Formats: sequence, C-alpha cells, structure tokens
Amino acid sequence: LLSKKNFLQHGWVMGFLQKNNSLGEEGRLAGSLSERQKNLFSCVNSDRDARFCRTETDFSNMFARDLLPAKNGEEATMQFLLELVDILTNYVRKSFDRSTKVLDFHHPHQLLEGMEGFNLELSDQPESLEQILVDCRDTLKYGVRTGHPRFFNQLSTGLDIIGLAGEWLTSTANTNMFTYEIAPVFVLMEQLTLKKMREIIGWPSGEGDGIFSPGGAISNMYSVMIARYKYFPEVKAKGMSAAPRLVLFTSEHSHYSIKKAGAALGFGSENVVLLSTDERGRVIPADLEAKILDVKQKGYHPLFVNATAGSTVYGAFDPINEIADICEKYNMWLHVDGAWGGGLLMSRKHRHKFSGVERANSVTWNPHKMMGVPLQCSAILVREKGILAGCNSMCAGYLFQPDKQYDVSYDTGDKAIQCGRHVDIFKFWLMWKAKGTIGFEQHIDKCLDLSQYLYDKIRNREGYEMVFDGVPQHTNVCFWYIPPSLRGMEHNSKEYREKLHKVAPNIKAMMMESGTTMVGYQPQGQKVNFFRMVISNPAALQSDIDFLIDEIERLGRDL
Amino acid sequence: LLSKKNFLQHGWVMGFLQKNNSLGEEGRLAGSLSERQKNLFSCVNSDRDARFCRTETDFSNMFARDLLPAKNGEEATMQFLLELVDILTNYVRKSFDRSTKVLDFHHPHQLLEGMEGFNLELSDQPESLEQILVDCRDTLKYGVRTGHPRFFNQLSTGLDIIGLAGEWLTSTANTNMFTYEIAPVFVLMEQLTLKKMREIIGWPSGEGDGIFSPGGAISNMYSVMIARYKYFPEVKAKGMSAAPRLVLFTSEHSHYSIKKAGAALGFGSENVVLLSTDERGRVIPADLEAKILDVKQKGYHPLFVNATAGSTVYGAFDPINEIADICEKYNMWLHVDGAWGGGLLMSRKHRHKFSGVERANSVTWNPHKMMGVPLQCSAILVREKGILAGCNSMCAGYLFQPDKQYDVSYDTGDKAIQCGRHVDIFKFWLMWKAKGTIGFEQHIDKCLDLSQYLYDKIRNREGYEMVFDGVPQHTNVCFWYIPPSLRGMEHNSKEYREKLHKVAPNIKAMMMESGTTMVGYQPQGQKVNFFRMVISNPAALQSDIDFLIDEIERLGRDL
Repeated sequence: LLSKKNFLQHGWVMGFLQKNNSLGEEGRLAGSLSERQKNLFSCVNSDRDARFCRTETDFSNMFARDLLPAKNGEEATMQFLLELVDILTNYVRKSFDRSTKVLDFHHPHQLLEGMEGFNLELSDQPESLEQILVDCRDTLKYGVRTGHPRFFNQLSTGLDIIGLAGEWLTSTANTNMFTYEIAPVFVLMEQLTLKKMREIIGWPSGEGDGIFSPGGAISNMYSVMIARYKYFPEVKAKGMSAAPRLVLFTSEHSHYSIKKAGAALGFGSENVVLLSTDERGRVIPADLEAKILDVKQKGYHPLFVNATAGSTVYGAFDPINEIADICEKYNMWLHVDGAWGGGLLMSRKHRHKFSGVERANSVTWNPHKMMGVPLQCSAILVREKGILAGCNSMCAGYLFQPDKQYDVSYDTGDKAIQCGRHVDIFKFWLMWKAKGTIGFEQHIDKCLDLSQYLYDKIRNREGYEMVFDGVPQHTNVCFWYIPPSLRGMEHNSKEYREKLHKVAPNIKAMMMESGTTMVGYQPQGQKVNFFRMVISNPAALQSDIDFLIDEIERLGRDL
Repeated sequence: LLSKKNFLQHGWVMGFLQKNNSLGEEGRLAGSLSERQKNLFSCVNSDRDARFCRTETDFSNMFARDLLPAKNGEEATMQFLLELVDILTNYVRKSFDRSTKVLDFHHPHQLLEGMEGFNLELSDQPESLEQILVDCRDTLKYGVRTGHPRFFNQLSTGLDIIGLAGEWLTSTANTNMFTYEIAPVFVLMEQLTLKKMREIIGWPSGEGDGIFSPGGAISNMYSVMIARYKYFPEVKAKGMSAAPRLVLFTSEHSHYSIKKAGAALGFGSENVVLLSTDERGRVIPADLEAKILDVKQKGYHPLFVNATAGSTVYGAFDPINEIADICEKYNMWLHVDGAWGGGLLMSRKHRHKFSGVERANSVTWNPHKMMGVPLQCSAILVREKGILAGCNSMCAGYLFQPDKQYDVSYDTGDKAIQCGRHVDIFKFWLMWKAKGTIGFEQHIDKCLDLSQYLYDKIRNREGYEMVFDGVPQHTNVCFWYIPPSLRGMEHNSKEYREKLHKVAPNIKAMMMESGTTMVGYQPQGQKVNFFRMVISNPAALQSDIDFLIDEIERLGRDL
C-alpha cells in the first residue's frame, strides 16, 4: 500500500542515476521516449558534481544499512534525502497556508497507544526506509506548526526560511564549536557576530567577551557565575564558603532562570531577592535600593542585579539607567536579561527602551526569540574581555593543545561550561547576511506595530479588559476576555474571580482541540488567568490578529 | 558570472511551477517539446501536495524578503530550499569520497581577510539569495568534513544519514521541549527513549528519571546538582552555607567537566579530589577509599564519586562495582560518566565493561559520541524518579500552567536548568527506529574491531610505542610515532622527550595542511604528546587505518 502511494505521489524525473528496476507508471511512459529526448531531460552533470534528481524509489526493502557509507549507497542516500526533503518542503509550504490547522491535538495516551501505523516504541530490529519516511510524516502530522501565521503561543514563533536553510547546513556540517581546528568558519562567525552585537549594545569598539549558549536560562546562569568570579574569584577554587553570603536581585516579574541559577550555583534561592514592580511590571528602583540596604544591614553581600529588558508576561523593560546608578553606587554587577527584548536593540524606533544598556556588565540576548532565528540561539555578552575564560577555564590539555600551528586564541571551548557545543551561530549569521541589520529592524517594527494594532482593537472593545494600562512596551498584550455571562458581575467577588480564572484555560483547550490558533495564558501574582498575546511571528498579519479575536469570542461566548 | 555558473550547474527539470523568465540553455531546448511531452515530465500533483521540482532560477535579484511568508513566495522558497539541498547533498556525497580532502586548511587571519568573495562581515543591507547560496557553499568549503572516512579527530565523528534526516526534520519543526503542548510527539519520544536507556542500564522496569541536555558536561553538572539535592536538599533554598564542606571525587583521567561543575556549582575546584589511576588509566579503588577517609578526617563531607566509563584519552573504564561498594559503605552518590563509553551498553560483547552500572545513581550517556548521532545528543539518566524536578523546579506559573486540558505531568520543562530546550531526541529516536538496537550494536562492535586492528598493526611495528600496554578497552589507541632520527636515542633523556613532544604536533600540522586525515594528540600527566586515535566513524574501514599509518610515516619520517 505504502509503495503504491509513494509511486503515485512521486513526480517523475529522468535521473542521472535512475533506477530501472523500480519504474512506476510515469516512468514506463517516459521510457518510450527516444535517447535524444532522454538526454535532454537528464540531470546535467558539470563541475564533477552529479545532480541528483528524485526518481520513484521503492523504499520498502531498503534499510539504513543501504545508505552511505554503504558501498554503492550513494543513490539510495540521495533518493532518501530527496524524499525526506519533499516531505519537509511540503510541510513548510502548508505551514504558511492559513487553511492548514496549527495542530492536530491528541492526548498523550492516544499518541502512546499508537496512531494508525505510527508507533513510538523502539525495537531491536530495523524498520524499512519506507516506514522511516512514514514516521517522519507522522511526526510532523501530530506536532505543532510553530511557523503557522496563527501560532502565537511562545516567545519563539515563526519559521524563517533562511534560518531553516542555516540549520540544515549546520546539521550537515555536524561539527562542534570547541576549537578552530574543527569549526574554523563557525568559530570566526561567532566571534564577528558577538562583536557586532556588542557594538549594538554600545560597548566601545564592540570590545568584550561572550559566547552562544543553549538558551537564555544558561546565558543568565553565565552572568551570575562571572559576576561571582569578578568579585570573589577565590570561589572558583574554594567554593561558596570563601565568600560572604552573596545576594542576587531580580524583579518579581523576571524570568525564573535567575532563581534557578541562584539555586544551582550554590547561592540558594532564598538569596535571590525579588524586587517590587510598578503597575506595568517594571522594577521600582527605590525598592531595589531599600532591599540592598536591608541586605547590607544583615551583613550579607549584595552582588548582582538583573534588570529585565522585556519581561516574559508583560514585556516590561526595567529602567536600566536608574538601576545602573544604584549598581555603581553599591559596586554591584549589572546584568540585563534581554532574552526576549534583545531584538529591539536592532530598531532605531524602539531601542530607547534599552536606554542605559551600555552600562551593563553583561547582557543576555536570544536571537531565537524576537529575531526569528530557529531555536536554539542565545548569546551571553560581557563587557570585560577575558572574564569568561578566567571564570570557566580548566585548561584541559587533551582538548586545547597550546602547540598547534594556528593562533589558539580562537579555541574558545575552555571558556564555556559546556565541552562539546552545538553550532548555533550559522543560521543567525546567515539570516543577518540575508536580511541585513535593516531587515531585522523591519521585522521588529512590524511586530510592534501589530501588537499596537491588537491593543487598539481590544482596549475599548466590549468583553475585554486589559491587565495593565497603556501601550505595551514590547509585543506582549495581556488581557482578559469576559464572556457575556460574566459581564454584569461584581469584579471583586470571589465567584467572578473563580469563573474568570477558568475562562482562558477553557478557551485555550477549545482552541487546541479545534487547532485553529494558539495563544498563551497564565496567572500573575494576584491576577487570575489572562491571555498573554505575543507577536514574534513574521508571518502574522492584521487579519490574523482579527482572526484570533474572532476565535476567542466564538469559543468563549457561551462560557 | 555566478548566475551563469548556476545555470551550468543546474540539471534541468520541467517543473510544475517552472519560471519562464529565467530559462537557461536546457530550459530553452526543452521548451521546444510538444505539450503532450511536457506533461509527461511535469511533476505529478496528487493528494493536493504540489511536487516541487528544481528549475533553473536566477537568484541574483531575489532576497530573503521574497521568500515565505511573502505573498506569492512559495515558488521562490521551494527553489531556494531545493538549491540549498543540492549543495548539501553534494557535500554529503563528497564527504564519503576518499578522494575528497578532509579539510582545506586556512589560518584565522586568512579567513578573516576574506577568501575570493567569501566575506564573513555582517552588514546593514541584505545580500541576494545568490550570494547567500555562495556563502553556504563557501562555509562548507572552508570547514572540516567530520563525516569523512578519515576524520578521526574527535569522539564525535561520522555523518549518519538517518540522523541527518532527523536533524533536518527537527529544524523544520522548530519547536521547544518544555511542554507537551508545543512538542507532543518529541516529548513522548524523549520519555520512551529515556526509559529504554534506563532498561539497558539495568534499572528495574526502566524506572527512574532523566533528560536530554546540551552535552556531556551539562549532563555531568546535573549529576552533581542532584547528588547535592539528594543529601542536602536545603542547599536549594539556603545555598552552600547550609551544608558542610562537600567533596567530589573523580579520576585524574576523567573529563574536566566534573571539575568545572564543582567550580560552577559552588563546591570549589579544590573540593574536587582527583583519584589516582593504574597504568591503564583506571581508578584504583583503594585510593578512593583512602581519600574518602582523609576527607572525613578533615571534617568534610564526601558526597559524590564519578566513575568514568570510557575516559577521554585512554578510553579507560573505571571498576564500577568496586567503586559502588565504597559508595554504599560511605553513603555517597555514584555517578557513571559514560558520555564516551555509553554506546558499549548496546553491545552484548562489550557491555561487561560497564559491569555494576545498575548500581549507579546517575549515568551520563552521549549518543552523539560513540553511537554516531549528530551533535548535540546527551542524556543524564537518574535512578530515582522525580528527583530532577525536586532539584530544579521553580514552578513558573506563566510557563507550566496546572489547569491544562491534558495530563501536565508530560510538561517536563521545569525539571531542566534550561527553559527553552532544543529538540535533541528526534534524530536519535529515528536512528534507533532505522537501525534497531541491533544496528547500534553492530556499529559499536565494528568500531572496536577496527581499533583492535590498529592496535595489532602498530604494537610491534618499528617506530611505534604504545602509551599503555594491552588491548584498549574502548576504541582509543594511544601511541607515539618515533621518527627514524629519534629511534636510537636514550628514552629518558631530556632531549629525547623534548623532541618527541614535538613530533605529534608537527605531524598533525602537516596533516591539516595537506588535508588528508585528522587525528588528535595531547600530553597526559608526565607523558609527552602522543596520538590518540579514536574510532566512532561508521565510514572507516581497515584501509583507512592503513592510510592513517602510512600518512603518519610519510609526514613524520624526516622529523
């Protein structure tokens, strides 16, 4: 059955290496053409590069062992990869088509029980390549189309084609960032890109340090580690007992990774002091100073402040300059967590929200969020040169030999907490080349405009209530949808709050079941569940915003 | 010029969506065929999936902004991706061809100055898609072919076609492991695969905990964190000052990541005690016990022992059972770092080297090393269920909402130290499906056989000296090549040692300049630089081993 389907699905191409033992209907028809005509349609071979064309191939008796490096495995390999690419390009195409569902939701137990020939269990014996291709199709089928124009669920959305190309190349190159020796081009790309990012932050001549890490949480963890190393370098060898009780400060609206870092690195989560925020979710500088004084009075040492530039829920930007003043006054490390907000640095219109960022000691900036780079792509940028190596190097002779024939200062592995490190830079570098700085700026500005459109649309609309007042600083628009049945109720009543708390989860569940769109929700402090709309998806248009609102109202009106 | 080259390189295919404004020579010829014939060669369209065929496309006036989600961007997107795939598949094909160089070495300053139209600098304005494709070609050209049959430089080598397909799909799906909501299939695959790995370790019913992390160093860091949490859970909130001085033990031959973890997590690198090893690089259990007693006598708390299963340089396996006895006696956490050795668990012939592993509390196992899975793919496996969440969760309500419509125990994000987490599981799951357990076993056994072949070949060969005696436990074969000029010299003389120290770096430099093969070298303790040959490359044959030896002798004979 599957073979038949493969034949039917296949376009016919007369290939340079066409297999004659597996011709389908089109192949047989084509076989009647004259030799001269055949040659016309042959794949041209120049530069000693064979051009492989897809031919209908029966994968039902082929296995992984028939692929390269198997002897004569070249054709099978090419046909398999081209078949896979066909699956992937169709997936890409459909993901941008609004008539495609965002997801085809199934519960865990349903997928675990197995769906029509899609079985997740692993076995001792190999599956045929035909089944592998089916597995690939089904994996995509039951997944979530994060590139769909109506996927708004996370800070990372969209599917950038150049970024995708970059990832395909990266995985084909399959190398490791730890030395110039085995990743010469990628290591240099990382160095140049980090420098460019530091220039944009505003550090003189783009000087400083930095590294790409597996996500913003790890980047934030780096910032805490190097802050500790800067002020208490002896902790590296002697442990936390060599320092006084060290305290970290971060907003109650900040990302949980600062607290996780505090716990993991031996500070203790209780020594991560949460700062109060204003109604818009921005740190109140006076509260920071008061809490620093309180900590000092207790005899502890205030070490580090994290200012969030683009908070997860509200998209709030802490006032960096005021916080920097306080950090200078008390000789503390200032980190700016721009994991989400970082992209705004590329926008002449919006970068003022980062005012003062050049005074930071370190900055987290995730191109995989607002800039649309495929996950993972996160940078930790540091003002002081050499401090990452000072903090993390263990000088492993077996990996980083000083007696190489090239300048080993390019071997960056020892400054990481990782050993092997995935190549996250290429897709980002390639996107930058393809769009220019200006292309990123346009993307950012467009997303901010769209969020303003959403804000303008709903702020006075019947049945909506904004979670905070005023134009959002980032693309986060936080709101409650109030179903008609709740509209007349007393807002402060327990019953109202309990009912409202269930509205967003209910609508979200129905959205997922119908597969039409996805948007996040959560409570925050005393505020019951509300929708947090974020826009980073380059495919989103105003009509998609309209669709989202229609969908919320369609699904929520009878709640 | 480049356009011309594109035309010439292109195979001609009559496409469903062929562009008429950019026909090259083949296109024009084809244009003279009758309509009936044209249709024969059209890409078949069924299932409402268009089959895209490559057509010669002029990318010189096309930009990233012309690709999806641009209006009418579908054809440009398909053509661009297919062109890129052509570059990639040619690269793959050539990487398995022994007549291709492993690398085309250039110094950093050469690449930074720019190579014939390949410029690493980023700019404000976009580049054309034609230039982007050139950038892709050049990035591969100046890189290192880690899949080449003669690339032996790292523990991760080879290019597995199924793994590659898995990575291409993963990047196309571009999602994030933190919730079932947005990665339902991948989250389940991870769960099932971790269970299977735990079964192979030998934990009853495969019960326990685990997660895929961005590399062995992070997996090892997890092990230290959870050991601390197990014995001193109060450290999570209160910091290291809530615990006595905690000490970690690991072999002097172990990976530096244990020491890095000690420094990062606040233990201090001085509280990572290095254990003495026997001549083969295996921990001496009596030394462990003596050092534990010494630490206890000082009033410190011995917390954690790392046993290495496959050390980086010698490939040594520490005696896990003896170490487990000591850990039980002193109530300590036993971690087994099988980042490199883990694959041997899949081999009935070699898994005895892991004897006792089921007694470990945690195990690091990197499928991206010995099992040939593309980087990154590393698992931390834990015997006690739920401890990862206990150790790391911060219960961030905005990400992990308890009021979802599905079983939220599948939302695994909060047990990670990361927030966003790259999908590392799919390529591994797909390879397991495609090869079966038995396929991994065959690969492992073949690599071990090859290393035995190398060992047998050189151990009594003139001009070679083994770094340690006996058949290697893993595929690591460590040896000095002694050029003829050094063969008569007194081995203990300073002059001999100094000269020998330079031999491997010199040969390696010449290897890289000539691009014929790559193998690692390093000193170890008092031992001067020697070659460390490792075999994890599925493409390697005995003839490649022969080639390596010939090459070492060719390059080294006049040193």
